[in-house]
Amino acid sequence: MTDNKKKPEWVPENASNGFTTEIVKGIDQNDASGSARKFVKKKGRTTEEYAQGIRNGNRTILAQAITLVESNAKRHEEQAQAVINEILPYTGNSIRIGITGVPGAGKSTFIESFGSYLCEQGHRVAVLAVDPSSSVTGGSILGDKTRMETLARNKNAFIRPSPSGGTLGGVNRKTRETILLCEAAGFDVILVETIGVGQSEVVVRSMVDFFLLLVLTGAGDELQGMKKGVMELADAILINKADGDNRQRAKIARAEYNRILHYLQPATKGWSSKAYTASALYHEGMEEMWKIILRFVDTTKESGAFTERRNAQTKDWIHAMIKDYLETSFFSHPSIKTKLPTLENKVVQGELNVTTAVKELINLFEA
Amino acid sequence: MTDNKKKPEWVPENASNGFTTEIVKGIDQNDASGSARKFVKKKGRTTEEYAQGIRNGNRTILAQAITLVESNAKRHEEQAQAVINEILPYTGNSIRIGITGVPGAGKSTFIESFGSYLCEQGHRVAVLAVDPSSSVTGGSILGDKTRMETLARNKNAFIRPSPSGGTLGGVNRKTRETILLCEAAGFDVILVETIGVGQSEVVVRSMVDFFLLLVLTGAGDELQGMKKGVMELADAILINKADGDNRQRAKIARAEYNRILHYLQPATKGWSSKAYTASALYHEGMEEMWKIILRFVDTTKESGAFTERRNAQTKDWIHAMIKDYLETSFFSHPSIKTKLPTLENKVVQGELNVTTAVKELINLFEA
Repeated sequence: MTDNKKKPEWVPENASNGFTTEIVKGIDQNDASGSARKFVKKKGRTTEEYAQGIRNGNRTILAQAITLVESNAKRHEEQAQAVINEILPYTGNSIRIGITGVPGAGKSTFIESFGSYLCEQGHRVAVLAVDPSSSVTGGSILGDKTRMETLARNKNAFIRPSPSGGTLGGVNRKTRETILLCEAAGFDVILVETIGVGQSEVVVRSMVDFFLLLVLTGAGDELQGMKKGVMELADAILINKADGDNRQRAKIARAEYNRILHYLQPATKGWSSKAYTASALYHEGMEEMWKIILRFVDTTKESGAFTERRNAQTKDWIHAMIKDYLETSFFSHPSIKTKLPTLENKVVQGELNVTTAVKELINLFEA
Repeated sequence: MTDNKKKPEWVPENASNGFTTEIVKGIDQNDASGSARKFVKKKGRTTEEYAQGIRNGNRTILAQAITLVESNAKRHEEQAQAVINEILPYTGNSIRIGITGVPGAGKSTFIESFGSYLCEQGHRVAVLAVDPSSSVTGGSILGDKTRMETLARNKNAFIRPSPSGGTLGGVNRKTRETILLCEAAGFDVILVETIGVGQSEVVVRSMVDFFLLLVLTGAGDELQGMKKGVMELADAILINKADGDNRQRAKIARAEYNRILHYLQPATKGWSSKAYTASALYHEGMEEMWKIILRFVDTTKESGAFTERRNAQTKDWIHAMIKDYLETSFFSHPSIKTKLPTLENKVVQGELNVTTAVKELINLFEA
């Protein structure tokens, strides 16, 4: 291969995308304010310091390690991998829960209420987000700050905004590695929220044990706008805002959703996905939801489906990273970038056949 | 890149998979009996002869050209591409219809009945099949022979069994190029049947204008066994065997399917997929089905969705072939084949992190 080929994001030559300048909630502001980039530079911790700090549950060091993982700079990336290798034996012991929802379904209110309930029960809860659009919007941190005020103040909770910048593949890797760091720091429930843009649900499904879909009452109208295939990923559907005048409608929606779920193949082998109702605003249904998740974990651990999925997720991740790399190498190759649109148009116009066009491109790439 | 990398199927070094030894129905047996492999060798037609013969609607030459396209031998492949380039200006003028169905829904009976109806109306109908499993089963031709006896005897119909051997990517290319050859030979309706194995529905959807799903009465039970996501690909659902005692159940199933379709996003922009009933065995509902397809074509041609989809399909095809090539190059590389399972297991066992494993593999590949 020539040197012309642009490296994909996860083996970058230099930091170009910048970092989030805001810092995670739940960390002492004096300790973690200012630019994350400067931060990494200034305090050059050793790999051992990072690993030990994380293992000790030091939230500041955990946040810095996540920043390291999110960095697109090559020198950071190398140390990040060294840190992950150190903490690897202490990972995997959480329940990883993915959460998605139709717009307006109240994802933040649910995470706030559900996360607070779990903390009360003695759990340690990390909240992460996958948002491939954050490179455009500058990250969802502003949202997170105001969205989950109570949970953010809880010392057993750790809220980390989505990594900014980069491809879905990059966000994917950063989030997976952040899950590992949080697990090593002792968080036993990881909530991964998806913003619902592009393929983000599929990406989150590929890194969690349990996937929850939040919806509203009024299934009929809402389903029309629901993203294709999302329902088929869900291990449970939670009809939120089942309070006040909405209770009756929520019941009807629940029956309706159960009816549809009946037609779909189960998202997880040996588990039948069902619809439930809750009111996150009034903290109703949180305990029930947690019991369902625990029953899910018991059932799938007993059947082996739990471990099977985690192992398959790991292997899929390897393959996805390789494919990402191969495609990025090819499609960002200068000659390909120049020639592809021309050849595509020729084929569409019927002037050239597909196989010949593809061969020409491959010859260019391998030249 | 080194020479070690195995070429993917569509740029093969030599013919290894062999050909179907049976010949398509609808062709004079004296003209086309015996091994197709010998056939291509013996009569070395020029590219011009192929192109002219196809354009003249010579069925024997069409069949030979398809055999050429299906060949995995490099010398055949080059000429096949030359032939396709010659006939390219005369392609694209058919309605391409994909047909899939649950087992037992009566695909063959439907194609027989529907195809015969179209021939009566003066259309020329080509029937192709995508069956990525045919490399194992030895092709579905035996089935095809007995399945569509009436249609096979019709001089306006051309039935071609699925290409044998090779990957889904290879079958995909061969079928797409066969569509082009049939169009140049004057067939104005192309029916592409999917056997329903693996990803074959998605592949067929990616090469046709209209996608039809055949089902049986008794939606509830049947849907449980239906492949995930297939319903969302369909521009229409046809409930077959709506005859005799089944009529009433078919009506109920129709309402049921329409209800579910209501919840799904349309397979085609601006077209609302609906369920219909028919009895292929008694030749009922064939005219109605054809009218629906014509209305679909009118609607989508007017809105631009028709051309948009065809252009997108062509571009996707280019990208899919490139990705196929890149992945085959990588995963069939001897060093990768040796090392991948070991590294995968190390990662699954928690002894190595994913990013490091992937880097090691890429270094091996690029060495």
